[in-house]
Amino acid sequence: MKLVVIGAVAAGLSAASKAKREKPELEIEVYTSEEHISYGACGLPYYIEEKIGSSEKLIARTKEEFKKQGIKVVTKSLVEQINPEEKTILVKDLDNDENKTVNFDSLLIATGASPIMPPLDGINLDNIFTVKNIPDADKIKKQIPNTKKVVIVGGGYIGLEMVEAFYAHGLDITVIEMAPQLMGNIDSDMAGVIAEHLKEKGVNVCSGEKVESFQGEKAVESVKTDKGTYHADMVIMAIGVSPNSQLAKNAGIKLGVKNSIKTNRKMETSVKDIYAAGDCTAAYHLLYEDDAYIPLGTTANKQGRLAGENIAGGNSHFQGIIGTGIMKVLDLEVGRTGLNTREAKQLEKDFYETVITIPNIAGYYPGHGKGKMKLIVEKGSGKVLGCQLVGPKGIAKRIDTVAACIHNENTIWDMAKLDLAYAPPFSPVWDPVLMAANVAINKFKK
Amino acid sequence: MKLVVIGAVAAGLSAASKAKREKPELEIEVYTSEEHISYGACGLPYYIEEKIGSSEKLIARTKEEFKKQGIKVVTKSLVEQINPEEKTILVKDLDNDENKTVNFDSLLIATGASPIMPPLDGINLDNIFTVKNIPDADKIKKQIPNTKKVVIVGGGYIGLEMVEAFYAHGLDITVIEMAPQLMGNIDSDMAGVIAEHLKEKGVNVCSGEKVESFQGEKAVESVKTDKGTYHADMVIMAIGVSPNSQLAKNAGIKLGVKNSIKTNRKMETSVKDIYAAGDCTAAYHLLYEDDAYIPLGTTANKQGRLAGENIAGGNSHFQGIIGTGIMKVLDLEVGRTGLNTREAKQLEKDFYETVITIPNIAGYYPGHGKGKMKLIVEKGSGKVLGCQLVGPKGIAKRIDTVAACIHNENTIWDMAKLDLAYAPPFSPVWDPVLMAANVAINKFKK
Repeated sequence: MKLVVIGAVAAGLSAASKAKREKPELEIEVYTSEEHISYGACGLPYYIEEKIGSSEKLIARTKEEFKKQGIKVVTKSLVEQINPEEKTILVKDLDNDENKTVNFDSLLIATGASPIMPPLDGINLDNIFTVKNIPDADKIKKQIPNTKKVVIVGGGYIGLEMVEAFYAHGLDITVIEMAPQLMGNIDSDMAGVIAEHLKEKGVNVCSGEKVESFQGEKAVESVKTDKGTYHADMVIMAIGVSPNSQLAKNAGIKLGVKNSIKTNRKMETSVKDIYAAGDCTAAYHLLYEDDAYIPLGTTANKQGRLAGENIAGGNSHFQGIIGTGIMKVLDLEVGRTGLNTREAKQLEKDFYETVITIPNIAGYYPGHGKGKMKLIVEKGSGKVLGCQLVGPKGIAKRIDTVAACIHNENTIWDMAKLDLAYAPPFSPVWDPVLMAANVAINKFKK
Repeated sequence: MKLVVIGAVAAGLSAASKAKREKPELEIEVYTSEEHISYGACGLPYYIEEKIGSSEKLIARTKEEFKKQGIKVVTKSLVEQINPEEKTILVKDLDNDENKTVNFDSLLIATGASPIMPPLDGINLDNIFTVKNIPDADKIKKQIPNTKKVVIVGGGYIGLEMVEAFYAHGLDITVIEMAPQLMGNIDSDMAGVIAEHLKEKGVNVCSGEKVESFQGEKAVESVKTDKGTYHADMVIMAIGVSPNSQLAKNAGIKLGVKNSIKTNRKMETSVKDIYAAGDCTAAYHLLYEDDAYIPLGTTANKQGRLAGENIAGGNSHFQGIIGTGIMKVLDLEVGRTGLNTREAKQLEKDFYETVITIPNIAGYYPGHGKGKMKLIVEKGSGKVLGCQLVGPKGIAKRIDTVAACIHNENTIWDMAKLDLAYAPPFSPVWDPVLMAANVAINKFKK
């Protein structure tokens, strides 16, 4: 029995490792077009920021380590075709351009996602980069000493993490976001706190502004939008990613939401013995009760592990997500889980929201500060539907407590009853989670 | 209608404020023998550490602020007697030694707890202090410049927080704990990590050692135990607290666990119209299904608020605790919730435990480090009964997520399914809570 995996980052290697542990006799080969494997892509902004000294630190495990475990990882080898009937793939060795056919009994597609590059004039100029892998990060790092002004197109997770990275290098930063707000997965009032924070730090935030073209000779020199022109020695494209699903589609495998590879909760695709996991697929969203395309590292790892388990003979179902996410930009933390107001409306929930000012820790302890917390609550039932947190250090990871409540379909009364940990360095005497629940209860009565 | 409150810290003032908000026409008088009111007692070690510049910062609200709210707070007035039949209290003005009788319609006893002072030889020598209120802290601060060696008797929350405070002042610190381990509310293997950490930092940790007497002329000079003698320029007594329940007992009010004032979950004592809340009472423990004496600031606030609500005409029941606690000592954080192995045995639970090494954040992000996490799981059901965390910054507040799981009677499979927040500055890609659940699942199978 042979498992072939396409893709050697989070989902692919989690699957390979789990399958090998569960079924040691399984022959496993992993193919990737990249040179690096098993790298922490979420760490790239911090590598660029130079919080991480060397890119080697981002590598969780090497080819040699996988080899010892009995997993063969083949790099710089592009899978060009999947033949489901023959149960083979066609692989091109990128070093010598030679093709070979590799057979499989089970196949896992973990091809990930690629940054979206809109077909704008000048998009192919030099010094326009994405933040996808280690070579990207190295190119950006190399360009930083030649850069005074950088334009980041896109104000989501990666765009804002890159703000932090460039801020540390003292660059003049402009963020251009097409939507009227940063961070499209939180509400505009919460996103407003982020924009204010960035402006205070001297970052130029242009939301509701559409990039039209890039100007320059060989390298980019400026970015033209529908509202103005911005000089740029470097541009980062971070408007989102799209699933690498073309290979699967060509093989007749069904696609689903946002062109991701459609799977069931066992991570099986529409074709027998072919699985998919990670950023090339969607994830079952427990509150949507449907698939959602929210590609995140932690989901990719979980899906990969589960696919590996099932390929090795298991019968597990993907647990589902509720849209939990977290980030930091400069001194500000952002956390979110469940539904935001836009999502709650789309799902036709009858809801109300409460927004309160919250302390991160005791008001007399060094490092204390204030943030904002929003709860989205179902009318009638009082069920917690969603939560958003923006504020200073220590605020955002509280989102996990609310996530546990949402998984358990807790009401605001359930949440207000939690016995949460208090000591001055960690929390005010009423943890913000309890404060928010109590305020939501008061509002419910009215 | 008049509410009289005895005690003007967490429970007493929470009750007064809540009762006033709910029923503005209520006349409220609060009596305290102390000079200070509404102070954050949990902040005292950090005030001593000089992380907090002035003791005023510990004061949440002043007498004048309460007056504006319509609440009369009378300081330096000792309540000497409660007369339930007459519905009066006898108050002694400590400034002029005059007594007066004050009537009430409802009475709340929120007299708190006092540090236990064992009747050992020399216990009344100078420079033997407790850490209960601002005058205590000021005395300790005054003695620090004259101190080279300090002995802390007791290795619980306060004892260890005082280690941190004195460490910052560069003192030579000895901790003497009668039990074989520090922190009696966590398991010995977890407590061992704390002892190791303190020893590495140069703190002299003597556990399983019983203090027999204190020697000195006027001031303490040494501490004699059953194993040796330790020189001391100052001694901190932190072996625990006992509820201030004598006043209630004298009035014929029923006492309960550890001589705390017995209340029902509405915070009513055995005598009509007399309530009690905070450290002078016990708290209903949801896992014990019985009262437990675990005096903590957050519980006192909740009980006080609830008592105030009920006094104002409400009909609420105290939510119950599950024993969640958190602390830090030097660079180490400690969190616990639910049952430890001793408690699980006492409750005759059939359980197993898993202990794993956990990272606080991504292994490549600055500030990363390793800690230990223990899960206590019910055999058969797989229900999570308890959790303990010890480790570097960012580890311990995760206890809240597990607390939410325990409140919801989640199993390890439920816990493994949580969609928790991941980004490198906050978490490894598998949050420790998920890692622990997965390891417990593997162990469950065997």
